Parts: sequence; structure tokens; C-alpha cells
Amino acid sequence: MEKIIEQHSKFIEIKNGSVGSPKGFITGGQNIGMRRSKPDMGWIYSQVPAAAAGVYTTNLFQAAPLKVTKESLAEENSLQAILVNTVSANSCTGEEGMANAFTTRKWIADHLGLPEHLVGVASTGVIGLQLPMDKMEKGINRISLQGADAPFEEAILTTDTHSKHLAVQFEIDGKTVTIGGACKGSGMIRPNMATMLGFVTTDAAVDSEDLHAALKSVTDRTFNRITVDGDTSTNDMVLVLANGMAGNTKLTSEHPEWGTFLAGLKAVCQGLAKFIAGDGEGATKLIEVRVTGAKNEHSADAISKSIVGSSLVKTAIFGSDANWGRVVCAMGYSGESFDPDKVTLDIGGITLFASGIPVAFSEEEAKAYLDQDSIVIHADMGEGSGEAVAWGCDLTYNYVKINASYRS
Amino acid sequence: MEKIIEQHSKFIEIKNGSVGSPKGFITGGQNIGMRRSKPDMGWIYSQVPAAAAGVYTTNLFQAAPLKVTKESLAEENSLQAILVNTVSANSCTGEEGMANAFTTRKWIADHLGLPEHLVGVASTGVIGLQLPMDKMEKGINRISLQGADAPFEEAILTTDTHSKHLAVQFEIDGKTVTIGGACKGSGMIRPNMATMLGFVTTDAAVDSEDLHAALKSVTDRTFNRITVDGDTSTNDMVLVLANGMAGNTKLTSEHPEWGTFLAGLKAVCQGLAKFIAGDGEGATKLIEVRVTGAKNEHSADAISKSIVGSSLVKTAIFGSDANWGRVVCAMGYSGESFDPDKVTLDIGGITLFASGIPVAFSEEEAKAYLDQDSIVIHADMGEGSGEAVAWGCDLTYNYVKINASYRS
Repeated sequence: MEKIIEQHSKFIEIKNGSVGSPKGFITGGQNIGMRRSKPDMGWIYSQVPAAAAGVYTTNLFQAAPLKVTKESLAEENSLQAILVNTVSANSCTGEEGMANAFTTRKWIADHLGLPEHLVGVASTGVIGLQLPMDKMEKGINRISLQGADAPFEEAILTTDTHSKHLAVQFEIDGKTVTIGGACKGSGMIRPNMATMLGFVTTDAAVDSEDLHAALKSVTDRTFNRITVDGDTSTNDMVLVLANGMAGNTKLTSEHPEWGTFLAGLKAVCQGLAKFIAGDGEGATKLIEVRVTGAKNEHSADAISKSIVGSSLVKTAIFGSDANWGRVVCAMGYSGESFDPDKVTLDIGGITLFASGIPVAFSEEEAKAYLDQDSIVIHADMGEGSGEAVAWGCDLTYNYVKINASYRS
Repeated sequence: MEKIIEQHSKFIEIKNGSVGSPKGFITGGQNIGMRRSKPDMGWIYSQVPAAAAGVYTTNLFQAAPLKVTKESLAEENSLQAILVNTVSANSCTGEEGMANAFTTRKWIADHLGLPEHLVGVASTGVIGLQLPMDKMEKGINRISLQGADAPFEEAILTTDTHSKHLAVQFEIDGKTVTIGGACKGSGMIRPNMATMLGFVTTDAAVDSEDLHAALKSVTDRTFNRITVDGDTSTNDMVLVLANGMAGNTKLTSEHPEWGTFLAGLKAVCQGLAKFIAGDGEGATKLIEVRVTGAKNEHSADAISKSIVGSSLVKTAIFGSDANWGRVVCAMGYSGESFDPDKVTLDIGGITLFASGIPVAFSEEEAKAYLDQDSIVIHADMGEGSGEAVAWGCDLTYNYVKINASYRS
């Protein structure tokens, strides 16, 4: 059963931590002229080849860079460098787009002196726009491992309002292990990946097969539990690199400290996921939906996502309106069966609905709570021990504004 | 296979037609003091008992009036009167709400001199609010079949900006048959019913079992193909009443003119469905999504709904932005499998995407088209003969405004 509130007792959070925090990772960003002045290209480099794993969008249209990165990983489940560009998503770009993604990978490999299959590429931006290959080539040739114009985590942003990164540290086999992460949101976010790119680095030595299983399991409970607008993009990808430079005995699922590593990975991914949800396009509030007492985790997962994805719930939270009927309604169309008469619902600890009927509450107290910038909705199903947490944001005028004119 | 554009060659549309147009139906509305001055209660009365059928929300939380109406229909599949109130949805109101719905039904039956099981009740408004029984009782006792303060179709509205009604006429067995309809939207609309109430009346004589099958089939292709915000309400219901006063031989699915009746029913339901989509909360544009060439109708249905339900597509249309990538993206996460390289996409006849890659088009021409208030998006899958049409609306600042403060 999933812990409702992540326990961090074993971890130290590194101040201003990111993908560059673990040993042996060099990261950076620069402007290659796709955006006016903001950095628009970022990279991650590991001093040694790292065990690597990825999870990808479920959208039938998968962007070219995802296909190329998958091919790289298929070779020996290792990566040593990742390049990220913004502005063009290189998605729905046909054979030309595929050729461009391969060419980009080759340029990085040549520039850094690596075999091509140790390079991953990721793109985010407008669908259908080809990569500006002249700018890409010049940009790649300017990459220096000695220093960069901008931090990686800033160079990968699109409509995000701030960069999203963190890192935690803990001991394994008496060695200090660090896990860092950086990501970008923020529209086209919904369970089963999103217009999000997530990058996790660690200096732990980890078996690549177990690393993949860990990433999949953690993603299902973190990145796949966030919703901004219900659209699943063509470019979503989370990559994890483990370069082993911490010097621990290689971690596998049999290792006594495997649980610690898994918890660390989850803490990083959950933190990044919450950053994305809270910085959803136009968002003013982070919404956390906790479902407990469900028949099982699957059911809790579906109900929590249904609530956090409801446009009517999202607008009510924006308006600080304790309109619990919309929450209950979203539970009812989640597709899960449950007994309505056993449901209890509270918002910020204020009970609004119990045993199938409304509970009298102070509208003023509820409004004061809902005026805050982080809102917790808790539904207990009264049926079992299944639990899940999902995250989202309110739906605001600015969401409409941002998306009515994204291309212009 | 479904016709993409409804053929009306056999029908005459009645000017200003509604549920009161078919023979023997008396309808009306009044203000019972739940809203300041607008009418808030409506009724439909048939001079003779009518064969009747209903389809209901799939939400697990079904409102009390739906349960009561189902009980009425279970008796002999007939109704003679329907009462609709707004403001309180009488949903999530526990035993008290159920008792109130039954009491309301009894009051109408007593007032009109009918057996209780010939009365249906429907409610729309805020979830969790009990019916104001004193106002309901006084209101019901004021109902007169000699005349009403307001039209039925106005008395059932909530956030709708205008009333929605129409009627068609055609010949069956040399007798003139009329089908009329009225409905209300407009938030919480999505496939598989919505916060919508739909009422269809006809003076045709129709077998009640075949009437039910016809309503179900037509609803799946009309009311269940509209989306405003993806929320499925607890109160949605479509009821059809056929009182036989046209004097035709009773229609069954074996009757040579069954197809004509079915087409008439579909024309009415499709017209009402489009009214709801076009008057979605805050909407400025009606969006029609046509999917052709799909593997089968089921696949076309899923893809059309996925496109019309995408918040990113909806905001792009609001902004008159031909952001076809979002349309393609929504097709890709519809859950249907297809070959991306066979897809052709056009908006208002302007091809934007073909054979898996973007097609050059004039942005000015596309913007001029998208500035209109009725937009057609057409995707051809190039795989088979499955077709479907779905309707929705753009996502605007006003949607957020309306829903951030609905209760206050």
C-alpha cells in the first residue's frame, strides 16, 4: 500500500539540487536562437556510461526523438549524454523529422566522442514543426563540458513559469548516494504521461533491468498521477541514468537497501510531479486528491484521477467554492463501482459529505481554506485499504489565455 | 453506417416547434420562487397516457428523481405527465431527497388526477440541495392545463443562454405525425449523458419496447456525442413520450415506415444535441468533428469524442488558431489503434495534415474560417468505412467565470 505522505526520514534534501548534483554528471543549457533570448537547448553528460531506462507517452503518435532514444537504449540499456531542445517538438514531422533526430544524435556523439547509442534526444514544443537543423548543429558544436551559459533545468522549459528540480541524498552500503531530477511541464498533462519531460540522474550503481522496473513502478504513482488538462502529448518521456560513481555495490531488487533506493527515486519523482501540477498552465493552486479506504489501489487510483481531472472541480477550486457535489459527481463517473453511502469527503479537514448525504459546514471556514495555494481533497471510500494520491491544479482564465494563442 | 449530414427530405421543420407541437400535449412553466423572477418549474401533460421510455446518466450517483421516474416507467412503460424543477438537483440528498421526489410525484398525480406511476419527475441544479417542498407544493397546485405563465422550454433552463426546442413533421400511413423536443444544457456535458435533460414528445403510436430501443440507439449517436467539459452529471435523463393521437397504425420495428420514424427521432435529438453543444457554458463556437474512413463506427466514435473533448483543441478553436497538432495528438490518445500515416485532417475544407505529415496552408485563410461561429473538423482515417460525428464547443474565459462561482 502506498504511503499517503511520503516519508523522508532517511533522506537529506540537497538545497537547490538538480540533475547535476549526483557525482560525475555535467549539465548545462544555452540559447541557440530558437527563442529570442531564453535558453532553448539543454544537455546532461555523465563522465562514464550510465545504466539507463525510459518510460514514454502512450500516445499513438510518438515523436521522432522518442523513437531515436528508444533505439539508443535498445543497444545496451546505457546512456552517457542527453540533448533536449525546445520550440520544435519534432512530432508528426514524417521521415524528415526522423532523419533529423538521428542526425542530431550523431552530431552530439561526434562532438562528445561517444558511440551514437549512448546518446538520447528529447524535444518539446510545437507539434509538426521541423527542427531548425542549422541552429541545432551550431548549438551542439558550442556545447562545452567546462561550463554553460545557463542551467539545464531552465533550458528545457516552455510555458513553465519556473524551473523544476530537486535532489536527495542517503546512504547505501556506507556510501553517499545522490538522486537528482529536473523536469518541465506544463500543458497537455494527464495520467499516462504528458507534455512533460523528466530527467533523473543518480551516482548509485544500479542494475539496468531493475532500474527500468523501478522507474515504471514509480512513474505510475507519481508522473502518471498528475493532470493539468487531460491531454496526453506525443513527446512525454522520463529518463533515468545511474552512473555508479557513488561506489556502492550494484543495487538490484535483491539488495537489502533496494527499498531505500526505490523510496529515494519515488521522493524525487513525486516532488517533480507536484512541481509540474502546481505550475500547470495558468494554475494558481496545487490540488492534491487523496483517496483512502478503496477496494484496492487500482480503484483508488481511478477515483483520484477522475476528481483531479474534472474541469468543474478545477474551476470551483479556482473560485474558492466548496462545491463538493462536483467532487462526488466526478467520483461517480470514474468508472469504479463503490457504495455511495459509505463515502466520506473532506476538504482541508472540513467534512462536507458523509454516508451519502451532505454535512453542514461553515462556508466561511471552507472559503478561507480554499483561498490558500495548496488544497487537499480527501475521499474515504469506507470499503477497503486501497489508497492513492493524485495531483492537479485549478482551471483559470490564464489557462484559456495561454492556450488560445500558443502558436502566435 | 451513419449519415454524415442528416437528410431531412422527408420532414418539414415546424417553425418554433417544441414538445407542445404534437397533438394532445399541453406544456407550460412558471416561477415558484426558487429563482428571483425567471421560471423555474416546467411540465408536460398528455391528454392520454403515452408509451414512454427513458435513458439515464451512467454516473454511479443517480439523483432521486431519476430513480422515481424509473419506478414509474417500470410499472407499464407509460407516462402522462412530467414535472421538471431547476435550482435543486435533488442529488446526493439521501433518504430525505428520495422521499421528497416521491412526495412531489404524488402531488402532481393528485393535482392532475392521474395514477402516480404515470408521472415522471426531473430535477436540475445544485447537487446536495434539498427540494424546497413548500414552494414545490404551492407551485404544483398552481399548475393549470388551461394556460401557463411561461413556456416549458424556458422553465427548465439553468446556465443556458437560450431555450432549445424544435419539431419535425412527416407522414406515416397517410397520417401527419409530429415529433417535438426540448432540452437544457449546458455544463457537465460529456458523452454518456450530461447535465442535460431532454424531452421528446410525439403523437405517433409506437410500441413502447421498440420506442425504448429507438431512443437508446438514437441517444448513442446524438446526446451521447456531445461534450462541453467532460463531466457526466448525476441528473441526466432523456424521456420520450408517444401518445398515439396522430392515429397511425402502431409503429413497431417491423413497420415499413419504422425507418422514417427513427430518422425523425434522430433529427430531433441531433438538433437538440447541437443546440446544447453550441450553448455550452461560455461557448462562442459550435465544433463539429466528423471522422470518416475508420475501421468501424465504434472506432470513429471514440476518435471523434477524443478530439471534441480536448481542452487544448477547444482553446485553440476559441483563439482561431489552426493548431492541427493538438487535433492529431487527441486522436493519438483516443485509445484506438490506427495508422498515423493514413490520416488526413482538414478544418473547414482546408487540408492541414496528410499521410502523417503537415501540409502547407494559408494561416490567414484558416484564421478567417476559424473566426466563424460554427467549425467543422474532419479527420479521415483511410482505413475503412466507419463514420461518426461528435459536437462540442470552444473553451473560453467565460467557461471559467461561470464555473468558478456557480453556487454564489
